[in-house]
Amino acid sequence: MMQSKTPKDSHTIYTDMVLPSDTNPIGNMFGGELLARMDRTASIAARRHSRRIVVTASVNHVAFNKMIPLGSVVTVDAKVSRAFSSSMEVYMDVFIENRESGEKYLSNEAIYTFVAVDETGRPVRVPEIIPETEIEKERFNAALRRKQLSLVLAGKMKPQDATELKALFQ
Amino acid sequence: MMQSKTPKDSHTIYTDMVLPSDTNPIGNMFGGELLARMDRTASIAARRHSRRIVVTASVNHVAFNKMIPLGSVVTVDAKVSRAFSSSMEVYMDVFIENRESGEKYLSNEAIYTFVAVDETGRPVRVPEIIPETEIEKERFNAALRRKQLSLVLAGKMKPQDATELKALFQ
Amino acid sequence: MMQSKTPKDSHTIYTDMVLPSDTNPIGNMFGGELLARMDRTASIAARRHSRRIVVTASVNHVAFNKMIPLGSVVTVDAKVSRAFSSSMEVYMDVFIENRESGEKYLSNEAIYTFVAVDETGRPVRVPEIIPETEIEKERFNAALRRKQLSLVLAGKMKPQDATELKALFQ
Amino acid sequence: MMQSKTPKDSHTIYTDMVLPSDTNPIGNMFGGELLARMDRTASIAARRHSRRIVVTASVNHVAFNKMIPLGSVVTVDAKVSRAFSSSMEVYMDVFIENRESGEKYLSNEAIYTFVAVDETGRPVRVPEIIPETEIEKERFNAALRRKQLSLVLAGKMKPQDATELKALFQ
Amino acid sequence: MMQSKTPKDSHTIYTDMVLPSDTNPIGNMFGGELLARMDRTASIAARRHSRRIVVTASVNHVAFNKMIPLGSVVTVDAKVSRAFSSSMEVYMDVFIENRESGEKYLSNEAIYTFVAVDETGRPVRVPEIIPETEIEKERFNAALRRKQLSLVLAGKMKPQDATELKALFQ
Amino acid sequence: MMQSKTPKDSHTIYTDMVLPSDTNPIGNMFGGELLARMDRTASIAARRHSRRIVVTASVNHVAFNKMIPLGSVVTVDAKVSRAFSSSMEVYMDVFIENRESGEKYLSNEAIYTFVAVDETGRPVRVPEIIPETEIEKERFNAALRRKQLSLVLAGKMKPQDATELKALFQ
Repeated sequence: MMQSKTPKDSHTIYTDMVLPSDTNPIGNMFGGELLARMDRTASIAARRHSRRIVVTASVNHVAFNKMIPLGSVVTVDAKVSRAFSSSMEVYMDVFIENRESGEKYLSNEAIYTFVAVDETGRPVRVPEIIPETEIEKERFNAALRRKQLSLVLAGKMKPQDATELKALFQ
Repeated sequence: MMQSKTPKDSHTIYTDMVLPSDTNPIGNMFGGELLARMDRTASIAARRHSRRIVVTASVNHVAFNKMIPLGSVVTVDAKVSRAFSSSMEVYMDVFIENRESGEKYLSNEAIYTFVAVDETGRPVRVPEIIPETEIEKERFNAALRRKQLSLVLAGKMKPQDATELKALFQ
Repeated sequence: MMQSKTPKDSHTIYTDMVLPSDTNPIGNMFGGELLARMDRTASIAARRHSRRIVVTASVNHVAFNKMIPLGSVVTVDAKVSRAFSSSMEVYMDVFIENRESGEKYLSNEAIYTFVAVDETGRPVRVPEIIPETEIEKERFNAALRRKQLSLVLAGKMKPQDATELKALFQ
Repeated sequence: MMQSKTPKDSHTIYTDMVLPSDTNPIGNMFGGELLARMDRTASIAARRHSRRIVVTASVNHVAFNKMIPLGSVVTVDAKVSRAFSSSMEVYMDVFIENRESGEKYLSNEAIYTFVAVDETGRPVRVPEIIPETEIEKERFNAALRRKQLSLVLAGKMKPQDATELKALFQ
Repeated sequence: MMQSKTPKDSHTIYTDMVLPSDTNPIGNMFGGELLARMDRTASIAARRHSRRIVVTASVNHVAFNKMIPLGSVVTVDAKVSRAFSSSMEVYMDVFIENRESGEKYLSNEAIYTFVAVDETGRPVRVPEIIPETEIEKERFNAALRRKQLSLVLAGKMKPQDATELKALFQ
Repeated sequence: MMQSKTPKDSHTIYTDMVLPSDTNPIGNMFGGELLARMDRTASIAARRHSRRIVVTASVNHVAFNKMIPLGSVVTVDAKVSRAFSSSMEVYMDVFIENRESGEKYLSNEAIYTFVAVDETGRPVRVPEIIPETEIEKERFNAALRRKQLSLVLAGKMKPQDATELKALFQ
């Protein structure tokens, strides 16, 4: 049997600057560039959890709340938050650091899902995850609700059957 | 008063190949690379609608249903589907073309939202949109439901107040 | 026998912005960057016509008539204009769009030639082309003259034998 | 008065490898990538001649005679071949080097024209050029014929007035 | 007076994969690519220590002991090890992770020096550093010896005056 | 027996501009970008000497004495300075050219060491080198001292046994 893991085992940190080629005409980072950096970081976390080739299966709703100016340092902090049979939800916190003040604040959160596959692209099982901290437990629990939302949006589950979601709207 | 526009006015097509530097170890396109190409294409559509600087505000749930192999031709086809006061929803269809058979199929759809801003980053009004075709009308109508979902997920609207969404779960 | 095709079958549109990394010290797009984007776009058109691997065989004289400033949207619009046994001439119109006015104008035209090859690099036959519109017919006819010029410049045809060209100078 | 220069004064050599991201599905260098490298090298030669900002004005007919495989070393060797009032013709020889045999052969020649401009983009005068070697003299003389061809193709000179060209076809 | 800091305050982690465009013909990461990633990571650490613009002043001797194959995960772990008046020595440990086994080993160490500057490029003072752990203290002490070696190699100090270094060779 | 070669046989020149994406917030070239360009150039020189696959083994101490502003032309001039059984020391001079004055000055020198390997990564013998000019002879002789320093720093030679180095400090 496969040994379970903790979110800490997949913890991945990516830190890099915003360069001129990453910015739009008013000097702020392109949303697409951040989406790509998050994909690379989250895929490493999923790989650390599964020790397999992983492919991006979906990206949850992402909101860009703050502009990220040229010269900022962007940190993507990723951990696998829950594992299903062959898929893994990766939860990321993105921090922005102002060069002069050194001030660091949470820019946004994002959730990507990956599937572990073999060399032929067929899904393979991944270890279970056991959350440890309070926030890891909270994210682990919410992951099921997000999975239902994802299935509903993909037309693979009827809204009426999404028990976790229905509770939200009552 | 600002003149309204049609989705056709913002129609943007981006066609490019999947190169070795865009692929993972089993030769399929990185999800992050596709997310970045969609952001660039959608932002051009939003710019064509608003003739303003635009910034990515959010990305709706995106599912990657098929692997996109090295050497494929990827086409991103984008149109503004609905405009709110200063924001625009852009709806994209992504097509993949097999090199040998020439076969072309819909790989996935995606929805990004942009905000038009002035040189100082402050939101500015954008023209209204008037959908023309059947599918444009359908997407225009669904946009309100998606906006509510977005507000609920961002914690800016109570689920109970999201009338369009509630209907789904009854 | 191979079925003939029309220019429309290979129609390829590439739309992208001019970013800081694409520009020279006075903020205009490098000629080389545009040459590279045209090559990628034209090669996709040639591939759509032939459904084969294609390699760039030659680039016709290209004039850069206007500077293309940072932040412009560049559209490359390509169609196969004529097919010879294993080669294809691709005709491109390049449009530039000003961000603020939305004004769009023809920046330049360009003509690249591609050869279809098999996996070992040997030329293979491609379908014939049947032009439909007035401009497609005109470009189809001029292609023969351009092919002669190309052969003369490569030293593979004597100027005196280039009947189509000679007519020009009489 | 501006001091004249020799082709040697603008001599520029660019040497780099063909990497995986520069190649097509059968492992040969993209034509567009070579066009871009030639533009960068030629623009440095034109800058060395003029000590001004330079912009690409046109690219002469370029033929790609040989495939350039992954891992090759590509050398672009550029010199200004003739200067007109504010424009400069740059002549390039491109050499390919096989990794294993060390064998080096001429892959192709190419000719780009640049215009020297001031900070506002207005053309400025450049020094005259005085060819020294046999081949430099030959290229210097041929440059006038090429300039006429360029003007004819751009519709700025009538074929009948292109005296240098007409001689070719008689 | 400027407040002193600890190495932990500048701790920077960069994690990314080795992609095809980063590798040589036998599928191992280019040394130059690793040198560039280390420069970016170390410069962020130096910036976190100084909250200033920083420029690379020197790179100590770097040995590449192991090949880093395509698909590996590379982690650069950087901390400022000692601060002089306006310069900072950054010490990095580079770890490589095998995709399949998950095994992680130290690939190499590297030491870069940065200078903090103002907007005009003039050096400015940086906070002192107070090492906390055993290894931080050891690296702090060795930094002086390295600085002497650096001065000797640059011809700015006579070997005979490099007291810390001389001790090594007696 | 393998035929010896001269430094001239491996002479490699790389010339390119500093573009916006290569610069830090005050418009000077990143140290890491120069380190990477030097690695590419030096590896071509080592390949020209050995006609083998080469991998970077080490980088000597590099000092960045001058800032290199955006728009400069950077020339890396590399030659193999000494060959040991399977390794080669490559000596580089880096020149910077001011766009306006055309003034060219030595920015810095750098020394990289490469190992020639076969397709499985195993070291293979390389030809000996016979220096010709005065400076080539001087660099050839100093190479042995550098090799000892390198071994001492790697902990593979005791300082007391580094006879060439000890002489320096007496």
